[in-house]
Amino acid sequence: MKHASFLTGWIMMFFSIAFANPAKPSFGDLMPQPKQIKAVKGRFVVNEQFQIAVRGKGSAKLFKAASRALNRLRGRTGFFMRQAFVTKKVNPDSAAMVISIQRPGNMALGEDESYELNVSPQKILLNAPTDLGALHGLETFLQLLSADEQGYFLPAVQIEDAPRFPWRGLLIDACRHFMPVKMIERNLDGMAAVKMNVLHWHLSEDQAFRVECKTFPKLQQLASDGFYYTQAQIKEIIAYAADRGIRVMPEFDLPGHATSWLTAYPEFASAPGPYSLQREWGIFDPVFDPTNEGTYTFLEAFFKEMSALFTDEYMHIGGDENNGKQWDANVHIQKFMKENHIKNNRQLQSYFNKRLLKILTKYHKKMVGWDEIFQPDLPKNIIIQSWRGRESMVKAAQQGYRTILSHGYYIDLLLPASTHYLNDPAPADLPLNAQQRKLILGGEATMWSEMVSPENVDSRIWPRTAAIAERFWSPAYVRDVDDMYRRLKTVSFHLEELGLTHIKNYAVMLRRLTDNAPIEPLKTLVDIIEPVKLYKRHQLRKHYTYSPLTRVVDAARPDAETARNFRNTVEKFIQKADHSTSIINRLVAWRENDKKLQPLIHGSPVLKEIAPLSKNISNCALIGLEAMNYILNKNKAPHEWRQKAKRILEQAQKPVAQTELMILPALKALAKRAAEDDR
Amino acid sequence: MKHASFLTGWIMMFFSIAFANPAKPSFGDLMPQPKQIKAVKGRFVVNEQFQIAVRGKGSAKLFKAASRALNRLRGRTGFFMRQAFVTKKVNPDSAAMVISIQRPGNMALGEDESYELNVSPQKILLNAPTDLGALHGLETFLQLLSADEQGYFLPAVQIEDAPRFPWRGLLIDACRHFMPVKMIERNLDGMAAVKMNVLHWHLSEDQAFRVECKTFPKLQQLASDGFYYTQAQIKEIIAYAADRGIRVMPEFDLPGHATSWLTAYPEFASAPGPYSLQREWGIFDPVFDPTNEGTYTFLEAFFKEMSALFTDEYMHIGGDENNGKQWDANVHIQKFMKENHIKNNRQLQSYFNKRLLKILTKYHKKMVGWDEIFQPDLPKNIIIQSWRGRESMVKAAQQGYRTILSHGYYIDLLLPASTHYLNDPAPADLPLNAQQRKLILGGEATMWSEMVSPENVDSRIWPRTAAIAERFWSPAYVRDVDDMYRRLKTVSFHLEELGLTHIKNYAVMLRRLTDNAPIEPLKTLVDIIEPVKLYKRHQLRKHYTYSPLTRVVDAARPDAETARNFRNTVEKFIQKADHSTSIINRLVAWRENDKKLQPLIHGSPVLKEIAPLSKNISNCALIGLEAMNYILNKNKAPHEWRQKAKRILEQAQKPVAQTELMILPALKALAKRAAEDDR
Repeated sequence: MKHASFLTGWIMMFFSIAFANPAKPSFGDLMPQPKQIKAVKGRFVVNEQFQIAVRGKGSAKLFKAASRALNRLRGRTGFFMRQAFVTKKVNPDSAAMVISIQRPGNMALGEDESYELNVSPQKILLNAPTDLGALHGLETFLQLLSADEQGYFLPAVQIEDAPRFPWRGLLIDACRHFMPVKMIERNLDGMAAVKMNVLHWHLSEDQAFRVECKTFPKLQQLASDGFYYTQAQIKEIIAYAADRGIRVMPEFDLPGHATSWLTAYPEFASAPGPYSLQREWGIFDPVFDPTNEGTYTFLEAFFKEMSALFTDEYMHIGGDENNGKQWDANVHIQKFMKENHIKNNRQLQSYFNKRLLKILTKYHKKMVGWDEIFQPDLPKNIIIQSWRGRESMVKAAQQGYRTILSHGYYIDLLLPASTHYLNDPAPADLPLNAQQRKLILGGEATMWSEMVSPENVDSRIWPRTAAIAERFWSPAYVRDVDDMYRRLKTVSFHLEELGLTHIKNYAVMLRRLTDNAPIEPLKTLVDIIEPVKLYKRHQLRKHYTYSPLTRVVDAARPDAETARNFRNTVEKFIQKADHSTSIINRLVAWRENDKKLQPLIHGSPVLKEIAPLSKNISNCALIGLEAMNYILNKNKAPHEWRQKAKRILEQAQKPVAQTELMILPALKALAKRAAEDDR
Repeated sequence: MKHASFLTGWIMMFFSIAFANPAKPSFGDLMPQPKQIKAVKGRFVVNEQFQIAVRGKGSAKLFKAASRALNRLRGRTGFFMRQAFVTKKVNPDSAAMVISIQRPGNMALGEDESYELNVSPQKILLNAPTDLGALHGLETFLQLLSADEQGYFLPAVQIEDAPRFPWRGLLIDACRHFMPVKMIERNLDGMAAVKMNVLHWHLSEDQAFRVECKTFPKLQQLASDGFYYTQAQIKEIIAYAADRGIRVMPEFDLPGHATSWLTAYPEFASAPGPYSLQREWGIFDPVFDPTNEGTYTFLEAFFKEMSALFTDEYMHIGGDENNGKQWDANVHIQKFMKENHIKNNRQLQSYFNKRLLKILTKYHKKMVGWDEIFQPDLPKNIIIQSWRGRESMVKAAQQGYRTILSHGYYIDLLLPASTHYLNDPAPADLPLNAQQRKLILGGEATMWSEMVSPENVDSRIWPRTAAIAERFWSPAYVRDVDDMYRRLKTVSFHLEELGLTHIKNYAVMLRRLTDNAPIEPLKTLVDIIEPVKLYKRHQLRKHYTYSPLTRVVDAARPDAETARNFRNTVEKFIQKADHSTSIINRLVAWRENDKKLQPLIHGSPVLKEIAPLSKNISNCALIGLEAMNYILNKNKAPHEWRQKAKRILEQAQKPVAQTELMILPALKALAKRAAEDDR
């Protein structure tokens, strides 16, 4: 799981992030921002005559992607365009948009993904060395579509674009909660829209094994609860991803996080079985026996099959969070260690990794693992994925290993997008030389799935992952948080066109919670709360794999926009004393909401747990209104009021129903302001 | 397509339907209503201790279905139940709900689907002869879940239930617009929720061929635009359906509607090729050559492969709308007819059908076809599907053939649910004896897909199909339209929990139409319009397979609830003069809406086409307000006003943007009332 023991590291990170430098102004709503952009005079008018052509040979991937782009354009404009698909038959000389590539791209790390997009009033030209670059250019093209009373158009621009990092990934954990094919596919579309290029697919865990294995069918039969991907589905997903310029790297977590493997094949465990699938969350003991030759025979046959199925050059073997307890307790393993001068579990795991590496190499795969696998005697073609901190990344790069960073991109922790956005994989002050810097390949957002279901998982991935995608793609100086949030709103909206459910399932969940009563009062509440962050939810209530994820906390979204806007407005008010009406209107609505919500709570028992939260909001809003009154009337709030305000706001600080009230910082600021002398 | 030529038949139907008899009161929100239900005193309390057990052997299907039901219960209540899955391990004596079946059901027409559900304050017992019955009982169980301030409960009841008809189908046309696997699967869940049991999967058409064929791969390679189901996906869908008690019957349309077949294999056409996929809608000439022995060799190999892939006993061969033009023009065919004493194209098609029947019989399939295939010399084990009228159904039954009815269930025509609901497959006055009546197996709703995309298709299927499902399942006397609509609202809401998009994609489409501006003014408008009905849309604007289906008409929904409620309210007002405030509030909102909508239209050119509609609504609402004024003040509206009202309301009658304004009948009623003497 990448667990709670590293909390301190996370918290440190939030404080150590440097705040945004004054940034260059961004262009339009583009996200990620391109490397270079130049606005030109004029606009290209989009109308029903619009056609896309490909000059030269193109590629199957390009024709398909261009046809999808054409359809999205058609969908947005409602135009009855005469072109059904982008095919070789369309004449580039008469088409409005012309794409040309030099060759099909390889689905391999480091392939050229650059493109140039020139929009003039007469024509749109998209040129790229490979179709992968052209795919990115098509997304930029769609992001440029604008409208006004005159109709649809693109502003004339000249764009030269290429990614800062070659590895821009999203990890989807399909084990803790199974994620159906449709979830993977719609998220691949989302990734492509923001120019990400690696799906890291976490496929084995203590809780389940999710791949059909023909050599060892007990893996899916006994260790998946019936929820696994068939090989046909896996091939479909890999092809779907490749069509969108995305590589698929599977992760089979070894030697720990292995309860599912050992449920099916207990004979390879380090302690006698039987095992059964883990239904709880955490770090568990079951681990492969690295001293059993049968383990390697098993893994060789397994990886032989999987190496053919998963076509990417890289294979992730996990390697994290092995607690070593079974190894410590196993006499045979202890004996083996002594005989082979293996001093500790770390070295034993290193021994295991080297054996595994030999197998992967035999089947032409390169190894990727979590930072625990990092040992200086491993060959230089492996990749280290840093998650516990960025120190391991730096250390690995210093010793000549390639790395990807996930520390700081744990989207399952439900932190605001800004936190991830400002976390640069390779800030200027890293103690690395130019050569070593190049070893930082990029990063990955990680969607661990303990607390998400297919219904709400998109709302944990999007739109925040678009901000991370920009961090991986755009120049380092693009880091204006306000501007990022402005553009994120547009990107989020456009992601919905790809079938992503992060917006629409919010209403679905609220409707279920109210049992189909009008949702507005509940929405008013949930709009200003967020699920508790980091690993707090586990501490507040014990969850199992099968616990419901349909409660208020699951509908609540990270980075609650209404609350964030309110905080910004209050900040401006305190600085310049404007926006008071909007603040007061908000506060009045919150003050009144409890009365409207009570009948809903009475009719729908699942809402009972938020009754105190609703009261808190009402009470806090009243404090806010009283503070506004003091401030606007230039009275200093008396001591007793300050005491009362403090008590009420502090009382509201405590999580209710595993959620946090996100307007409190703003209300505290108002209360503080009301109590100041020098206004 | 089942096309426009039969419009008259359809229109006749609307007028000939008898209005609802006084109905028995329905129980709760159950849909379909069960055969027998008896309310008992008390309630069964649902809490976190709730468990489901299976007594006896059960079946894999039952355990899976019970686990899904448990999860839906968990999702609705938010309860942290201790049971992860329903397995054999749970002790029936300590479980709250106990299911027992006598045997696994056969996935075959006519299998026993009955069940008994007894809810007492102590226990819930679900008994059924087969697991298919138990699956239906589980849906009834979930529909009984209720809540009040005390918490969640089920009212105590005794239910004995069984379907009226054994064939309760939904046709999904995956050809005119491709419907991805996820669309099929979520709709199978919807069907199961309302106890339907046949997916009629329309897989070949003039516009595309949608199945991977290994014997003749050009079918998918040249005739699908790349959008087809792999055999792995088809097997997945058949298994998914079987898990939900649903049979899957494929349709391969022959000998007409065959452009896609002949695009791939022009050598079997009745006129020289080459052919290309049809991009328009209608009835087209390409037809197989029934005099070419190669045709039968081809079809034999084809159906050999498909008979193994599709496991259901029935195979639909289409047979509709062959216009015969290619046959008339082909000298060789004319000669063949003369030589073989075949008098006309109808007889020639009958010859073809008989050859086809031999092939199907060889591969153990029974033939189903549209009513055109009906010829008295065909064997009695075929099934006739009536779509042009119910006459063919009656005629076929009279001659001893089994039939299913689709006439009156064409949901693509966008008529209100009530129309379909009151269309009984076997009303008492049919000229059939008891024996013949039994040959009416049931019916099928048909979702032809010329004018739907995967994005909005659910909103055309649901919730109206739930009313049709009730017609097929419940006793004939259950036919109170108001009560149906009351229950339909609840069913519609619960269908959303299965992933159906009929509610949530409405907002998605409105957001796209406004380019992410606040959607409320647009929603106010679209809530009271409907797409034009029957085949009118084709007449108003020429559509191609690739025309956008993202405009206002595509977001608008059949059976617009707001408009229907308004009509009902106005009716009550005219009868009893109450509800005037609610009517006036509505009218004022509509009157004011144009002002709010104009800025949205200016910002989003795709909305330009509804500008006149928005003005119409404003003008009509003013007429409504003026009428209310006359009525409430007991003044008779003067002649000039009546002329003006007539002109404005008539002008608003004309479709705008292919939509109809559904509040007009109510406004006309008000205007008429305002002009009456005798108030």
